[in-house]
Amino acid sequence: MGTPDKVFPHATGEALKTVNKHSQPQDLVFYSGWFCPYVQRTWIALEEKGIAYEYKEVDPYRKEKHFLDINPKGLVPAVEYHGKPLYESLILCEFLEDAFPSTPRLLPADPFARAHSRLWMDHISKAIASAFIRLLQAQDPDKQTAALQEYYKALRILADQVKAPYFGGEDWGLVDTAVAPWIARDFVVEKHRGFKRENVGRNWEEYAKRVESRESVLRTMSDRERVEQNIRRYLRDEAQSEAAKAVRAGRPVP
Amino acid sequence: MGTPDKVFPHATGEALKTVNKHSQPQDLVFYSGWFCPYVQRTWIALEEKGIAYEYKEVDPYRKEKHFLDINPKGLVPAVEYHGKPLYESLILCEFLEDAFPSTPRLLPADPFARAHSRLWMDHISKAIASAFIRLLQAQDPDKQTAALQEYYKALRILADQVKAPYFGGEDWGLVDTAVAPWIARDFVVEKHRGFKRENVGRNWEEYAKRVESRESVLRTMSDRERVEQNIRRYLRDEAQSEAAKAVRAGRPVP
Repeated sequence: MGTPDKVFPHATGEALKTVNKHSQPQDLVFYSGWFCPYVQRTWIALEEKGIAYEYKEVDPYRKEKHFLDINPKGLVPAVEYHGKPLYESLILCEFLEDAFPSTPRLLPADPFARAHSRLWMDHISKAIASAFIRLLQAQDPDKQTAALQEYYKALRILADQVKAPYFGGEDWGLVDTAVAPWIARDFVVEKHRGFKRENVGRNWEEYAKRVESRESVLRTMSDRERVEQNIRRYLRDEAQSEAAKAVRAGRPVP
Repeated sequence: MGTPDKVFPHATGEALKTVNKHSQPQDLVFYSGWFCPYVQRTWIALEEKGIAYEYKEVDPYRKEKHFLDINPKGLVPAVEYHGKPLYESLILCEFLEDAFPSTPRLLPADPFARAHSRLWMDHISKAIASAFIRLLQAQDPDKQTAALQEYYKALRILADQVKAPYFGGEDWGLVDTAVAPWIARDFVVEKHRGFKRENVGRNWEEYAKRVESRESVLRTMSDRERVEQNIRRYLRDEAQSEAAKAVRAGRPVP
């Protein structure tokens, strides 16, 4: 405990190609950690919207002074826009909606439908993402079984709301964006915790396949071996990320 | 444990006057619990915006069938708008912004400033509100001291951002709305846990006085004795609300 995690220093595979396309200075700087599912949400939104951005990889355990100066919490994802910082993955997604109104919309225009989307984004953050971490960190077989059931339950509640092909119907939106990084990583819990998409029911398997093969999701995913290697610390309950420590201590993910 | 909490059945004082003004059927039905700080956020927003609404008190331990039909989670605050339900206090506040664009705006128009407000609303929910419940529930003197310091710390971080007179400057906004219910209840931790506004520093005392004396806050507060009576279950760590159980179990507030 307390020893910094070792993290492979950069994106690989399809994500690396995307990184390399975004190395030029832009008004919007995107501070990323290639491995982080919260980061991937904002990254997917940037790609869906076709916004010009400069990608910067942040070493989570050796953060640069400029990054800490603008963002004292030191969390990724973060955005520096005309020199001013913002963070929190879903707040960043909403910022991109507000600041780039001529790009493809990821929230419905109707106020009720917008609120409905936000409710389900909230469910994903509070229930699905934290259940996923608990499932990874569970060491005892009984706890693994309980955590797996909790994860299924959280997914089923969302699955019941999916209109298909995407959450809101025809168009990709912020709810799909919010859940995609966990779908793209569920191969790890399939391999190590007995998770099966088909056990969720409610056409989850079909939805998950569509989500993980979306261009913006593919373009922001590193090689599966690297992703799994990164998650191994969680599987041994040795991860020291803020999210890992929060879930272990029974606190909300910061 | 497991015994339902007894809750005084209706609002009192100024809040009761407001309830009585909102007894007529409207397109927007506001499902409330007079004692709940999360409810008060949405209530303040409704009052600030002057939206026509019908107030309905929900007995948290004997929920009506119609309420559970539209809102299976059974949480308050909830809104039924043209027969469709929404819930979650801050999502409801944002819904009111979106659905009633001709009422006073509670979020800035500038995209960056909007995101900045949302970051601080998030801090209030994740850090301030949960630290307040932990402070109430702490029984052991050492834990009370630690919880009080945690509460001061969470408030200081927000206090540093207040432009005055309100969070964003001249105009009351959603950040003020989001934190007001905890300011309006801090007399309980002053009496029972040694909290002092002046110990927060950073002009918190002045800000807190302005917030608690805002018309919309006064109009949605019941008598202090009733509020304190309701909170006593928390002070004995016997409360059975979803928030109380979540904090006790080390889970995010649902």
